[in-house]
Amino acid sequence: MRYSGQVGQSLVDAGVDVGDEIEVSRSGEIYRGILMPHHDFSNPAIVTLKLASGYNIGLELGNESKVRLVSKKQAETATERSMPVDASKKKVAFLGTGGTIASYVDYRTGAVHPAKSAEELVFSVPELMDLCDVKARVLYSIYSENMEVSHWQELAKAAADELNSGAAGVIIPHGTDTMGFTSAALSFMLRGLMGPVVCVGSQRSSDRPSSDATMNLLAAARICVDTDLGEVVVVMHGDVSDDFCSAHRGTKVRKMHSSRRDAFRSVNMDPIARIEGPNITFATEYSKRTAGPVEVLDKMNKRVSMLQFYPGFEPEHFDIIAGNVNGMVVAGTGLGHVSDRLVASIREAVKNGVFVAVTTQCLQGAVNLNVYSTGRDMISAGAVPLGDMLPETAYVKLMWALGQTDAREEVEKIMLTNIAGEIASRRSV
Amino acid sequence: MRYSGQVGQSLVDAGVDVGDEIEVSRSGEIYRGILMPHHDFSNPAIVTLKLASGYNIGLELGNESKVRLVSKKQAETATERSMPVDASKKKVAFLGTGGTIASYVDYRTGAVHPAKSAEELVFSVPELMDLCDVKARVLYSIYSENMEVSHWQELAKAAADELNSGAAGVIIPHGTDTMGFTSAALSFMLRGLMGPVVCVGSQRSSDRPSSDATMNLLAAARICVDTDLGEVVVVMHGDVSDDFCSAHRGTKVRKMHSSRRDAFRSVNMDPIARIEGPNITFATEYSKRTAGPVEVLDKMNKRVSMLQFYPGFEPEHFDIIAGNVNGMVVAGTGLGHVSDRLVASIREAVKNGVFVAVTTQCLQGAVNLNVYSTGRDMISAGAVPLGDMLPETAYVKLMWALGQTDAREEVEKIMLTNIAGEIASRRSV
Repeated sequence: MRYSGQVGQSLVDAGVDVGDEIEVSRSGEIYRGILMPHHDFSNPAIVTLKLASGYNIGLELGNESKVRLVSKKQAETATERSMPVDASKKKVAFLGTGGTIASYVDYRTGAVHPAKSAEELVFSVPELMDLCDVKARVLYSIYSENMEVSHWQELAKAAADELNSGAAGVIIPHGTDTMGFTSAALSFMLRGLMGPVVCVGSQRSSDRPSSDATMNLLAAARICVDTDLGEVVVVMHGDVSDDFCSAHRGTKVRKMHSSRRDAFRSVNMDPIARIEGPNITFATEYSKRTAGPVEVLDKMNKRVSMLQFYPGFEPEHFDIIAGNVNGMVVAGTGLGHVSDRLVASIREAVKNGVFVAVTTQCLQGAVNLNVYSTGRDMISAGAVPLGDMLPETAYVKLMWALGQTDAREEVEKIMLTNIAGEIASRRSV
Repeated sequence: MRYSGQVGQSLVDAGVDVGDEIEVSRSGEIYRGILMPHHDFSNPAIVTLKLASGYNIGLELGNESKVRLVSKKQAETATERSMPVDASKKKVAFLGTGGTIASYVDYRTGAVHPAKSAEELVFSVPELMDLCDVKARVLYSIYSENMEVSHWQELAKAAADELNSGAAGVIIPHGTDTMGFTSAALSFMLRGLMGPVVCVGSQRSSDRPSSDATMNLLAAARICVDTDLGEVVVVMHGDVSDDFCSAHRGTKVRKMHSSRRDAFRSVNMDPIARIEGPNITFATEYSKRTAGPVEVLDKMNKRVSMLQFYPGFEPEHFDIIAGNVNGMVVAGTGLGHVSDRLVASIREAVKNGVFVAVTTQCLQGAVNLNVYSTGRDMISAGAVPLGDMLPETAYVKLMWALGQTDAREEVEKIMLTNIAGEIASRRSV
């Protein structure tokens, strides 16, 4: 993306394009480096330079600042470079999908389009090559709010292929917005994991001094090469400083803040592991790598909806949607309740063959439909309570369960069976 | 509610009814007291006795336990008792609505139906009368999942009446499931508060040693008589022990756990105050009591829906609901995003006169539609981002805004104006 406004004009005036080597004078200091592309996330008054040290800095241009062209950019070579092969290290497969963590690549390489090649991603964090033998490719480059079921299916197959052909682990750089949905989907689709599948994102792009991309990627790589984990996890910052990363179970994690670096939180359990530099501490039980091979069960029935009940919720809207789907996840209030009026709609939907599952909009804690009469009415209407499963995980799982079988009893059995740690054995009510 | 199963049979065999004085022998000990009614929340093997001390105990009946009738119950007198008037204390109005905190009353009085009279509630926590001159009445007695807009309107009028006729504060015992919606609704409907309006609930009924009802009610009363607060707040336990209660701003509070006593949390701000016994510490700025009178703006437009975007969300479902409402609150991912496909639906809905507001399903943090191109597309489609407002609060506020005016510009202005602390001035992105 190009610079705009006053900054853009200064660059045009100096005959400078993204990728050129330039000098910026500001407050008596002179900075020399490669002009990085402007990014969505940046303040429009800031130009980003890649210094000779390899680090990027953001410089706010004031009226007194001057920009001078040093040399025009070289022909792009990033995609020409081939990955070094280091057979002495464990192989880790990187499957790029897009998102802020991919636009990070963008910055470091000077490429205008995000992550044309996954090699760019790895070259941008060369420390990764100290840890593992990198095999990288970009599956797609999209904002994660545009991820669909078909993307999950493609990812599952690609991850299984990599593990089945010898990768010690798979790292999926991913936009953070829907990363928890993807991690849940992969958790159900991938059975018998021979190594970890790690979804990793960043909340801040690299022009900001607070970027979390490098640390998150390195922590993800360490999980792949230094542990016997055989689960789908999300690895992100564990707190707002750069102290440690957390590995969250793929079915128990949710983005709980729109912008903080520690936005991802395990819900109803502790994170599986803490990654502090080279030190990894497991805090919970976890599934170990299998001897393989990894099996892919990626059939999904997309005719599933999720909705939150709230006062004033119009049962008619439930009826319309229920008439159009095979499964419905309701995020009820408290222990899982809905209004008496909506219970009648649930009864009708179940009668018509819709599988209605119940979770709690509180997110924390379990549903329990045996405590109050409302809940007992919901049970008698045919609603199925899902313990402490997150609504989002329940939505993904219900698509998956309905993809495995059409028989209602089988679907119910699958939904109530703990397949990928999505239901805690310890209930809190 | 009657006892059932083996326990029920033992009671029938002994000729005992709820309200009778009985003796229970268990493990060599004999307990004497009034048999309290069985409650939804109780273990069916437990009988609850009200001891002469006034405390209730739950006794698990084993095979060796024996039950003996001491005397049949007296005619009910609870509703006959009249409230003592103590003009030396400040008047606090209690407006009962139902919920677990009302079924607490049930226990102490021995009445089978919850909270027939608000006096029962107050008599059940006699310490309340040490703090204030109690004026109590039951508006209705329902599970809070059945609260509707009309209940909020009735509550707002009743609360204003009490404050305008001299009450130092209003306490609304309320089921916890939708208490956050009610507190938000009252926050917008009641203008120029002459004293606090305190929604208070309990997560555990009183047959459990962990009941939080008494402490929450006393903390609510102290807020009314000992502070100059002029806001709608929710008062509940601040942690899982009985250390302190928190007062949360009515527009910034959400039930974040299905069962814990500290389920209610302030989101994107600290609780307004900490109530530790008689000590009240304010932690944030707050609105003070006015000289009055309290004005009620209770018009609401119920044709508003709220929905969460997620991968695989079917835009057609949005279209159907949007065709049926005047306002829609979308809880987008991350900074407020939806898929490109849904942006097109939003554009169409806005074109058709639907007000589409955007919040984040992360709950914590603010939306920002200026960072990524998806967000900018949403803005250009006519979506209105609401900063760090909770989705639930936005839903209630949009009904209220559309109740005040039909003019789109006016609705937008209301939605973006901080009316009851629902938008934090400090943004986190």
